Amino acid sequence: MVDSRFFKVSGPFSLNELEEISGAKVGGDSENRTKMFADVAPLNAAGPGDVTFFEDIRYSPALAVSKAGACLIREEDAAKAPTGMVLLVTPQPLRAFARVANAFYPGGADGVGVHASAVVDASARIGEGCRIDAGAVVGAEAELGDRTLISANAVIGPGVVVGQDGFVGACASLAFCIIGERTYIHPGVRIGQDGFGFIPGRDGHLKVPQLGRVIIGDDVEIGANTTIDRGAASDTVIEDGTKIDNLVQIGHNVRLGKGCIVVAQVGISGSTTVGKGVMIGGQAGFAGHTKVGDGARIAAKTGVIRDIEPGAAVMGYPSVPVRQFFRQVVALAHLAKKKDA
Amino acid sequence: MVDSRFFKVSGPFSLNELEEISGAKVGGDSENRTKMFADVAPLNAAGPGDVTFFEDIRYSPALAVSKAGACLIREEDAAKAPTGMVLLVTPQPLRAFARVANAFYPGGADGVGVHASAVVDASARIGEGCRIDAGAVVGAEAELGDRTLISANAVIGPGVVVGQDGFVGACASLAFCIIGERTYIHPGVRIGQDGFGFIPGRDGHLKVPQLGRVIIGDDVEIGANTTIDRGAASDTVIEDGTKIDNLVQIGHNVRLGKGCIVVAQVGISGSTTVGKGVMIGGQAGFAGHTKVGDGARIAAKTGVIRDIEPGAAVMGYPSVPVRQFFRQVVALAHLAKKKDA
Amino acid sequence: MVDSRFFKVSGPFSLNELEEISGAKVGGDSENRTKMFADVAPLNAAGPGDVTFFEDIRYSPALAVSKAGACLIREEDAAKAPTGMVLLVTPQPLRAFARVANAFYPGGADGVGVHASAVVDASARIGEGCRIDAGAVVGAEAELGDRTLISANAVIGPGVVVGQDGFVGACASLAFCIIGERTYIHPGVRIGQDGFGFIPGRDGHLKVPQLGRVIIGDDVEIGANTTIDRGAASDTVIEDGTKIDNLVQIGHNVRLGKGCIVVAQVGISGSTTVGKGVMIGGQAGFAGHTKVGDGARIAAKTGVIRDIEPGAAVMGYPSVPVRQFFRQVVALAHLAKKKDA
Repeated sequence: MVDSRFFKVSGPFSLNELEEISGAKVGGDSENRTKMFADVAPLNAAGPGDVTFFEDIRYSPALAVSKAGACLIREEDAAKAPTGMVLLVTPQPLRAFARVANAFYPGGADGVGVHASAVVDASARIGEGCRIDAGAVVGAEAELGDRTLISANAVIGPGVVVGQDGFVGACASLAFCIIGERTYIHPGVRIGQDGFGFIPGRDGHLKVPQLGRVIIGDDVEIGANTTIDRGAASDTVIEDGTKIDNLVQIGHNVRLGKGCIVVAQVGISGSTTVGKGVMIGGQAGFAGHTKVGDGARIAAKTGVIRDIEPGAAVMGYPSVPVRQFFRQVVALAHLAKKKDA
Repeated sequence: MVDSRFFKVSGPFSLNELEEISGAKVGGDSENRTKMFADVAPLNAAGPGDVTFFEDIRYSPALAVSKAGACLIREEDAAKAPTGMVLLVTPQPLRAFARVANAFYPGGADGVGVHASAVVDASARIGEGCRIDAGAVVGAEAELGDRTLISANAVIGPGVVVGQDGFVGACASLAFCIIGERTYIHPGVRIGQDGFGFIPGRDGHLKVPQLGRVIIGDDVEIGANTTIDRGAASDTVIEDGTKIDNLVQIGHNVRLGKGCIVVAQVGISGSTTVGKGVMIGGQAGFAGHTKVGDGARIAAKTGVIRDIEPGAAVMGYPSVPVRQFFRQVVALAHLAKKKDA
Repeated sequence: MVDSRFFKVSGPFSLNELEEISGAKVGGDSENRTKMFADVAPLNAAGPGDVTFFEDIRYSPALAVSKAGACLIREEDAAKAPTGMVLLVTPQPLRAFARVANAFYPGGADGVGVHASAVVDASARIGEGCRIDAGAVVGAEAELGDRTLISANAVIGPGVVVGQDGFVGACASLAFCIIGERTYIHPGVRIGQDGFGFIPGRDGHLKVPQLGRVIIGDDVEIGANTTIDRGAASDTVIEDGTKIDNLVQIGHNVRLGKGCIVVAQVGISGSTTVGKGVMIGGQAGFAGHTKVGDGARIAAKTGVIRDIEPGAAVMGYPSVPVRQFFRQVVALAHLAKKKDA
């Protein structure tokens, strides 16, 4: 299933190990506890040596004929599984499956050390077990925590800090930033360039100096070719656990709270503040200086030009509550039909 | 016309050669078949040694006074040309002109070989006549087909395959992908990073391992700074002949059929399937898991949240048939006017 | 306030020097002209040695209790300042503050010279006082004006010209372009790749050769990961003083007039012409071959599919005058409400 050209499989794992990894419990008769499982696979492709999962009721027919050796499954669905399949019972099969798949495919770097063609300033502080790939550049006084990987042709600017167990993708560039632990910076990301701050004028737009930084928390992920400008007076801040997709633009002085999810091609203008656990759909845009409350949900393509209440679900441009958006869609379709008649 | 600082001209070409290259036929009396043509140029800038074309009726006045030595033209337009101009008659003048211009300016690389500062793993397999520019990095077990060009500071990850006559632009990064022949990857493209797959949760968003690849066909073009994530369980697939513009986002497990055209800044969310010959306007967006039928036309800025029938032409958010979209635009303008009165 | 890890402060400056730098005049009794100021800071963070500014009336309470040593302020607001604060009177406090901050933090490069790992072609012409960082590549016959900085892993293609006092960010790539003086190219920018020009056809989309260049004026700024394609027959042109934000797409043969401001994620399709001093909000899009008049204002997310008059302010998709847009928003909300009743 998985292409061994690109992915190295760990394991095999026993049922006891799978219980421990997944947090699930083997249901029914526990029979042969020493049976080993060698891989993960979807329901329809799994064989007797594979672990799969079942969570979405629409896949019941596939479950009924699946050849998988073991299946992560909810207790109430156990009766749908074919006989002979080992059931690993858990209230959250997909979540448990992700843990199992991460155990089979831990990823991570092979080897450590600095490639001969990398350029690391003598004053940079490099932690234990780091790997710095070909052509990467690490500037003066920069700091890398232990086990951090800097990919080929990435550029870590002077003074930049990347916490331990970090990953910086190929051709990414980091400047004027302090980054937490276990952060994952995808290829081509641009962090810390000076923001878009101009005072318009007839004799030219005057640039405002951008003297802040970018501060990124722990367990943050930043998608490929995403851009995050540094602050003007204060800092641009991305808090712990927030996940940002590809090609997102984050302006100067933006603050994103903990645990947000920001889908691809979103644009957040300068000085906008987003609370905790906010979900933002793809291609949504935010005017500058707006405030978005905790737990708000912003649909894809929404244009936010006023503050959003905590917990609100909004859509459209300018944004309105999602239900109102769809009422408007229906009303407009009806109106256009009537005019035809 | 063309700046010789950047472009090297081939030729000159005789009328016989131009017939062969363009597929057009010299109309009227064939006179001096040995006359040579040295360059291409637009109608208004072409001189006696240049080849031009006429296809759009709005340029008839320019044609009447053009000094071009030869013109690719439809038979029915031949009478509009000034006397003395050699006419190369073809039903598709622009298409024929593109072939002629490609002959005068074949582009392609000068020279072959691996630059001294490139880093090519000893286990990589490099075809005949490849060129690998300064600072490029080619990983372990990677394979480059014959005559493929890897530009400066590009990064080809371990195991990646690029078919023959391929081009990879400056600072692009490729990982976990298999790429066909005659593909053109522009600068800054990101292929194969792991997709945006998280299971949201209160105690943090759990990452789902992304164990698929990116499979790209023959004659595909990928625009600058576009991002294509690798698949989660299955692969992300771009089929033969599809052309993708700049800054496009393609999520994990997306499948794009043959011969699609995807304009800049489009975003296609995970697991969406697009048929053959689909045209997608700029900044359009697709929700995940939608299906778009063969030959559909999606207008710029459209937001697709439901499946689209084959051959449909849609616009708006949520998308509706293009005619309905414009009826709604008119109805709304009318409604707003009435309210003012 | 400002992190000395990243920013080196100049100064201190005397009141006389601050008058000269800012164009402001010390108001009231001039007292101790030899007092020195060491830094800039916002109203609420400034101390006795800092220069601040006051322009927005909403910050009057912060001004009343500010500890700043000196404040750039309008004459009519002077009475709001606490006693003892030195007032630097000017009609444009923010503009004056930008000049002062630029004096304290001039930025710019330390040191000159070509890093040992940079690859500079022997035929390239490098001006006085240039700096070329690690891993950068400068191609044959390229020209860099005096004091230009090429950042790490950037790629300057053959024949490219960058005028004096230019800046090219990390991992940017420039090709087929001529760039003026004092231009600032952010990291990851892609300039000069061939544009998206295909003639669609059943037996494949035929590529039209792109034989133009990109011509960029003086004092232009191009944001991170922005892409600018070269012209097809004529050139793509960005005129003097225009500022472009991150992740913007500029198609082939586009012409942007002097002093435009283009916010992040805007897309401008091929052959569109934009006049002088046009302001374009984030995520706006332009169909190909449209004309936008001088001084027009295009709101964020607007979709321009027809020509825009000089001085017009438009919004929506398709674009309408801003006032009409909001009238339509109100009319539609009202209609949807009525239907519910």
